[in-house]
Amino acid sequence: MDRSIFAVIGGDARQIALANMLAAEGITVYCSGFELSAQLLVGTASTDPVTAAMMADIVILPLPPTRDGKTLNAPLSTYRIALEENFCAALSGKEVFTGMADRLRKSSPSFAPLNLIDYGEKEEFLQRNAQATAEGALAEIIANCPHTVSGSRILITGCGRIVSYLAPMLRALGGNVTVAARRTEDRAKISALGMEALTFGRAARRAREFSVIVNTVPAPVLDARFIGEVQDDALLIELASAPGGIDIEACVKRNIRVINAPGLPGKYSPITAAEIIKETVMSILEEG
Amino acid sequence: MDRSIFAVIGGDARQIALANMLAAEGITVYCSGFELSAQLLVGTASTDPVTAAMMADIVILPLPPTRDGKTLNAPLSTYRIALEENFCAALSGKEVFTGMADRLRKSSPSFAPLNLIDYGEKEEFLQRNAQATAEGALAEIIANCPHTVSGSRILITGCGRIVSYLAPMLRALGGNVTVAARRTEDRAKISALGMEALTFGRAARRAREFSVIVNTVPAPVLDARFIGEVQDDALLIELASAPGGIDIEACVKRNIRVINAPGLPGKYSPITAAEIIKETVMSILEEG
Amino acid sequence: MDRSIFAVIGGDARQIALANMLAAEGITVYCSGFELSAQLLVGTASTDPVTAAMMADIVILPLPPTRDGKTLNAPLSTYRIALEENFCAALSGKEVFTGMADRLRKSSPSFAPLNLIDYGEKEEFLQRNAQATAEGALAEIIANCPHTVSGSRILITGCGRIVSYLAPMLRALGGNVTVAARRTEDRAKISALGMEALTFGRAARRAREFSVIVNTVPAPVLDARFIGEVQDDALLIELASAPGGIDIEACVKRNIRVINAPGLPGKYSPITAAEIIKETVMSILEEG
Amino acid sequence: MDRSIFAVIGGDARQIALANMLAAEGITVYCSGFELSAQLLVGTASTDPVTAAMMADIVILPLPPTRDGKTLNAPLSTYRIALEENFCAALSGKEVFTGMADRLRKSSPSFAPLNLIDYGEKEEFLQRNAQATAEGALAEIIANCPHTVSGSRILITGCGRIVSYLAPMLRALGGNVTVAARRTEDRAKISALGMEALTFGRAARRAREFSVIVNTVPAPVLDARFIGEVQDDALLIELASAPGGIDIEACVKRNIRVINAPGLPGKYSPITAAEIIKETVMSILEEG
Repeated sequence: MDRSIFAVIGGDARQIALANMLAAEGITVYCSGFELSAQLLVGTASTDPVTAAMMADIVILPLPPTRDGKTLNAPLSTYRIALEENFCAALSGKEVFTGMADRLRKSSPSFAPLNLIDYGEKEEFLQRNAQATAEGALAEIIANCPHTVSGSRILITGCGRIVSYLAPMLRALGGNVTVAARRTEDRAKISALGMEALTFGRAARRAREFSVIVNTVPAPVLDARFIGEVQDDALLIELASAPGGIDIEACVKRNIRVINAPGLPGKYSPITAAEIIKETVMSILEEG
Repeated sequence: MDRSIFAVIGGDARQIALANMLAAEGITVYCSGFELSAQLLVGTASTDPVTAAMMADIVILPLPPTRDGKTLNAPLSTYRIALEENFCAALSGKEVFTGMADRLRKSSPSFAPLNLIDYGEKEEFLQRNAQATAEGALAEIIANCPHTVSGSRILITGCGRIVSYLAPMLRALGGNVTVAARRTEDRAKISALGMEALTFGRAARRAREFSVIVNTVPAPVLDARFIGEVQDDALLIELASAPGGIDIEACVKRNIRVINAPGLPGKYSPITAAEIIKETVMSILEEG
Repeated sequence: MDRSIFAVIGGDARQIALANMLAAEGITVYCSGFELSAQLLVGTASTDPVTAAMMADIVILPLPPTRDGKTLNAPLSTYRIALEENFCAALSGKEVFTGMADRLRKSSPSFAPLNLIDYGEKEEFLQRNAQATAEGALAEIIANCPHTVSGSRILITGCGRIVSYLAPMLRALGGNVTVAARRTEDRAKISALGMEALTFGRAARRAREFSVIVNTVPAPVLDARFIGEVQDDALLIELASAPGGIDIEACVKRNIRVINAPGLPGKYSPITAAEIIKETVMSILEEG
Repeated sequence: MDRSIFAVIGGDARQIALANMLAAEGITVYCSGFELSAQLLVGTASTDPVTAAMMADIVILPLPPTRDGKTLNAPLSTYRIALEENFCAALSGKEVFTGMADRLRKSSPSFAPLNLIDYGEKEEFLQRNAQATAEGALAEIIANCPHTVSGSRILITGCGRIVSYLAPMLRALGGNVTVAARRTEDRAKISALGMEALTFGRAARRAREFSVIVNTVPAPVLDARFIGEVQDDALLIELASAPGGIDIEACVKRNIRVINAPGLPGKYSPITAAEIIKETVMSILEEG
């Protein structure tokens, strides 16, 4: 790995920070897809995506790798990088790191033979990303709720990694936290922490009590019936990946505030987010 | 007090929320100075400031009551309410609640005979306001620092009310918190909490260690010499009231990021901030 | 289940509390094995173990069910209840709840055909038991370490359920917590919380730094070489089940303090511990 | 101060630890009053109290300095050191550090002309001692309450230094904390932390809700009427100095458990407690 050449292609500020971090360690890095960014790329070589991929031993694609299923996710580029034969040919024989590898495989059969490695599935990535997401969610709550967290009644749905970071944070600020979870063992974990745990059924019947509701479940748990019960001035925050778990239309009808908040680590902590990707990639390469 | 009529004159979203809360309790409220606001005033009567004051038994002025020393602080009005004889005559004989009463007294001798009551000096106001400030500061840090709070080295200067709320919050998020304080007993309090406490002299010698520096001291503690030592990409946040404790010019010269963040409770938690004023005023009226 | 008759046989104060809780709900409960206890059994029928088992539909045996592999764990009885054919015949056809069912199965082939249900394997039991264990461990540390937790450097080995509760508690008291864990993802979780995470190799090289060391790993991680490096006045606490992970002999040789602390929930929180068993059993019965 | 000779006379394990710490720094230390202790005095000279005092420039007496008002508090000695002319003559011209200096002055007029310095009144001592007291109180609660702190409803009376450390600790463990305080500003502080704050009147009417009640008020706030309302199996903990605030007789009549827990820092954290005294004394000496 010592002399491996990297390419960082597409993505947002996180990928730029990642390219700079690699370059700062003396690694040769080819970049592509950042020509619209005001952020400096320091010590890296910018080129077109096919050349970047061909020059590299190791390619790092963004998370998510595509939004439309046809082109690479490259919001900082005017150039659309098609997810087709041409690009895949350049990636052939390389170690190709990406998040959500499935989306690539679905987009074109040309990805099937490639050596795609999904850093976004590694537990170490997921844990640290969940912590960064929780910090971003906290900032969204403070910024958008006209009350202090202290003294507010907050409902969180789901009991995965993000919640294990977010619920204690909210409590430490003085929030009164309730968690709705389907599985008995998840509710037991919440109870053991001294917070209130509810089934979704009970949460729906008590929807009116909460001034902030945070969803982390990627399934329609906050449906029209639930939305019909929340306070007029409740704040809802969607953290689950699309299509999420909140019935947005029902919120719009009732004029309830909803904040769709994907990609919080990249938005609030781009450097930490880049470090997390870099360290996960490096640890995969070392295990290798 | 039961049948007292209130006037709420000048100020920002907090004052509007305050007027609405009073009206929602069935109190007669005259408002003035909010004609530019998009926020609705519900169940209150809008009029000019002199009329509002004259109609009322109890007048609530904003915090701060003036920014220029000549006119009332009324950012949501195009009309400049002069702090002069005319306005003071209308306030005569009323219970006039305000924050920073000294600023009014300095602005015109006509305030001298008035019954000015400073809600901003009450310990209950100061404590709750400090907590709301700490939440806002936390949101500013998360939003402006490209790293997560978790794992960051954070220096806070001062050891007053805000710090007693902010330091434990930052630690609960996983921040590594150091506090610089002048008084031995304040450093003892920080040490007792298990955080690192430094004199200002030692903090200056170690300025380079911190990626986030939050000032709460209204005295020039983060002077040019100190700023000369901080990391190039440090984030500085000024919470102390003007002129603050950070040498902004020194930051500008070095291209160091500084965020001047006054009025955080009004910005991040206008409803809680209004509640705090309302409850402090009510508790003063009850004590009689 | 409504009219089911319960038997509670053997065990410590937890089982007595459990029997009383069941009786308080109007359930018929036969008890056996508590004649040495000063605690009252209220509204239950005491009898010999075989009769108790025969009268019941549902039998609850203790955790652990045996210590010697031959007799039931019944420290509050002078009578030794042999884990043999006779007792097993009485249990035949019943729903027999126990912790560590494997120990019963190993003790006698007569357990093989029985309907043994291990409540100690349920995640909801494990989570709440881990929280109670963490509280007990905290009390042991405060009681046995001559320094305050605040300001102490504490090493925890392992990163399972207990640690997920204990590490944040110690930090909330102002302790400086480091966790040694083998798996990359566990270290990522600890880092994400803003605490220091080490491999066991690195922890061993830095053993000298810690004044309190808590083991939760049931494997010889704190071996003679590690013990050879710890401070003379370090305090070691063993939370892993026998044979634990601390080389006790090495500690004795060096005159290092070790506290072997099994069964903390029963010792520190017998009523909560009984509730946990009761609720786990009830939830298993409801699931059907 | 560099060449000052110290005497450490009377007191418990804290004073022994203090003498050893001073000796470890190369200071000449005379000790008296520890002949019954199993703890080693390392590098100090033991002698009778009058000689110790006469040899020293600086004398450190214990906290409290006397329990009976007649003799020095010296539980580790069979010898009774009378607080009389003889002893005071030996202390004449020395800097005499003690806690609760008033008790000495009341015990004999011979103390009036002495240079008594009360380290127990210094804010830095009080803060760190309060933190150590809070840790000890937490250990007492965990050890004596048969439920976990997590999920328990806990009432704390008073809102001083100890409570500012103890209430957040209990919440971090998952306890549901309510604080009863007389002053509006203290209740505001508790509310700002997101905990429930009550007047004493309201707390009395809701006494039945709490399973743990901790008193820190040195006035009869938990009187017979209050005790008459608490749960049969409530646990009461007295942290206020004698005569405390709990009506013990009323508890005895109702068979309610009360734990009188004075001197927690010396009991749970003798080394930290000694450090706190030493550092306070040193800081007083440095200030000059």
